[in-house]
Amino acid sequence: MNTAALADYRSYPLISALATVQVLPDRLQVHWADGRLSPFHHQWLRDNCPCPQCVYSVTREQVLEIVDVAEDLECNAARIDADGCLNLDWADGHRSRFDPGWLRAHAYDRQSREERQAAKARHSLWDASLQLPEFQYQPLMEDPQVLLQWLLALRDTGLTQVRGAPTEPGSLALIARRISFIRESNFGVLFNVQSKADADSNAYTAFNLPLHSDLPTRELQPGLQFLHCLVNDAVGGESIFVDGFAIADALRREDPEAFRALCEIPVEFRNKDRHSDYRCLAPIIALDARGQVAEIRMANFLRGPFDTTEEQMPRLYRAYRRFIALTREARFRVIRRLDPGQLWCFDNRRTLHARNAFDPASGARHFQGCYIDRDELLSRILVLQR
Amino acid sequence: MNTAALADYRSYPLISALATVQVLPDRLQVHWADGRLSPFHHQWLRDNCPCPQCVYSVTREQVLEIVDVAEDLECNAARIDADGCLNLDWADGHRSRFDPGWLRAHAYDRQSREERQAAKARHSLWDASLQLPEFQYQPLMEDPQVLLQWLLALRDTGLTQVRGAPTEPGSLALIARRISFIRESNFGVLFNVQSKADADSNAYTAFNLPLHSDLPTRELQPGLQFLHCLVNDAVGGESIFVDGFAIADALRREDPEAFRALCEIPVEFRNKDRHSDYRCLAPIIALDARGQVAEIRMANFLRGPFDTTEEQMPRLYRAYRRFIALTREARFRVIRRLDPGQLWCFDNRRTLHARNAFDPASGARHFQGCYIDRDELLSRILVLQR
Repeated sequence: MNTAALADYRSYPLISALATVQVLPDRLQVHWADGRLSPFHHQWLRDNCPCPQCVYSVTREQVLEIVDVAEDLECNAARIDADGCLNLDWADGHRSRFDPGWLRAHAYDRQSREERQAAKARHSLWDASLQLPEFQYQPLMEDPQVLLQWLLALRDTGLTQVRGAPTEPGSLALIARRISFIRESNFGVLFNVQSKADADSNAYTAFNLPLHSDLPTRELQPGLQFLHCLVNDAVGGESIFVDGFAIADALRREDPEAFRALCEIPVEFRNKDRHSDYRCLAPIIALDARGQVAEIRMANFLRGPFDTTEEQMPRLYRAYRRFIALTREARFRVIRRLDPGQLWCFDNRRTLHARNAFDPASGARHFQGCYIDRDELLSRILVLQR
Repeated sequence: MNTAALADYRSYPLISALATVQVLPDRLQVHWADGRLSPFHHQWLRDNCPCPQCVYSVTREQVLEIVDVAEDLECNAARIDADGCLNLDWADGHRSRFDPGWLRAHAYDRQSREERQAAKARHSLWDASLQLPEFQYQPLMEDPQVLLQWLLALRDTGLTQVRGAPTEPGSLALIARRISFIRESNFGVLFNVQSKADADSNAYTAFNLPLHSDLPTRELQPGLQFLHCLVNDAVGGESIFVDGFAIADALRREDPEAFRALCEIPVEFRNKDRHSDYRCLAPIIALDARGQVAEIRMANFLRGPFDTTEEQMPRLYRAYRRFIALTREARFRVIRRLDPGQLWCFDNRRTLHARNAFDPASGARHFQGCYIDRDELLSRILVLQR
């Protein structure tokens, strides 16, 4: 255990001790006991000084601005102390002391960066054979470890079911708040999924709903969607799910030209009623900086007229048809009917959901839903993992 | 006035009448009375059929899925009727009827698309000489036209002041809800900006805060930020604003290499306390699909250690310093002190804000703040403009 300050709440295990350190004109070369060599530029080290002058200890937020330090500030001396910490003397008299666990966790030599990349969570793609991750309400409400397992399943698989929940209207909020506050929308904090005469969305009819993400009409689609079954006496209304990432993956392999069209050509989604008018222009498949599929945006009933060039229009229709056709293939579809006290929680930006038509004359059907953003899910996981 | 159905709540003025229409194998060629020629592919027309079978009239949402129509469906006949509407007979027996105003508004010939692009709102860049858009509380709460003027100023200039507001805590919510519901965060629905002993952010200290956007640690930074002055008896604490788009524009002209570095190299922002741990990796300057500056993400006190390659690290520090140095130049800075009953409302993804240090011993200082997303601002504008 060493005593260097940290501008963080996480702890950083000692992976390897510091062996030697060499001061070069613009950087330090750090040799670790396990043989790794890590460069640290003087500016980077000065910028990340965790001393109480540079970081406010109450908030653990930086008060130093690097622009207030000379761009060519020199490091006069570097030494490893008895606690194994790296100590630096700067030309302007300032001193810095770095914890070796923290330093290794933030090293930016090629190997250290690759290790961090490889350690990141991966999505596990699924199809109709999915072993559905199921969680019981009571343990999930009481045991932080069960909660963490649920949240990891949401992050990595993107489809979960909770069983044994209360059937009182509003009780969904208790479950959602185990993660965080709820993201409000024009449909409210909790929304009621029931057939209504004055529906302001096809979701509030008895129609079948094709596979879609919710609120594709917003710049940021909600990260998590909850659908809680309170009453389900009507004939029909089964839930259908597909892994949008698995479908995008299949499209990429089977029809790369169609895949590219859906990544490149933006489509407008529209949700409009007497009181609101949301529009969002974005491609159906979004890729991250590394070219991996990061998000699916799709709802046929909320789509505006395609607006692309005369040349691109047939290409977009071909790709759109191909994608929808894949979502209709049985190999991808998980179909289940919820009983009262059960709820779906899924990654709304990945797992597309659909509903079969139901017969409102055959019995009552009442679901409640809500949203939570991905930021909240990931924050809660990090806090539970501390 | 014609009687064709619309899958929309907007009305579409008749810009030009339909003159003639020619049926080609995969598309129609429409000639307008003003000489324009617009192609419409058969699939596009069938997809956008607004009849009550294809669009549910209550929600004005599509029930047809184009994938359920043959990809090579032929149009047997096209004629312009006495109301000026385009009537189509499809090979499968379906019939469609299009309003000419709607059709022109969605035409995708090159000229029509360029006109729509040119008609989009533009940001007006500003500097220290800004004539601050000011609005009075009472008219804004009562008159939809004044409300619309305020919202357009927020969209296009990104910095506004409201005067004559109440000074009761909580009254900010009334003003914000003139636009929409409020976006909650871990700091609450309304947050109190006061110096606190147990601060969970440097915002809740008496320190100066360098120019920043709020919540850069979230995937979607809040679109609008409100800061409402209830009490301001302390010495210091002036608000400072710069137009982040103007600074990005200056950087692009004066140091294009630094501009590119800030667009290309992602930076992690972190906001962490005992109960939350938000992290977001994104470039400081985000460009839209057309290469225009769309967003600035910046808060030195919420920035994590830079994590890029050994080669890129000096490039990133040089660019970061250059950007910060520009935000400190007097030519860009608007500096004002708020009195009780006044509030700032600004585009948090464009207009960076700062606070001078204040002396909590010299008097009380109490502001309240909240956020609303850009989706809500734009929706409200579209509804007010109907």
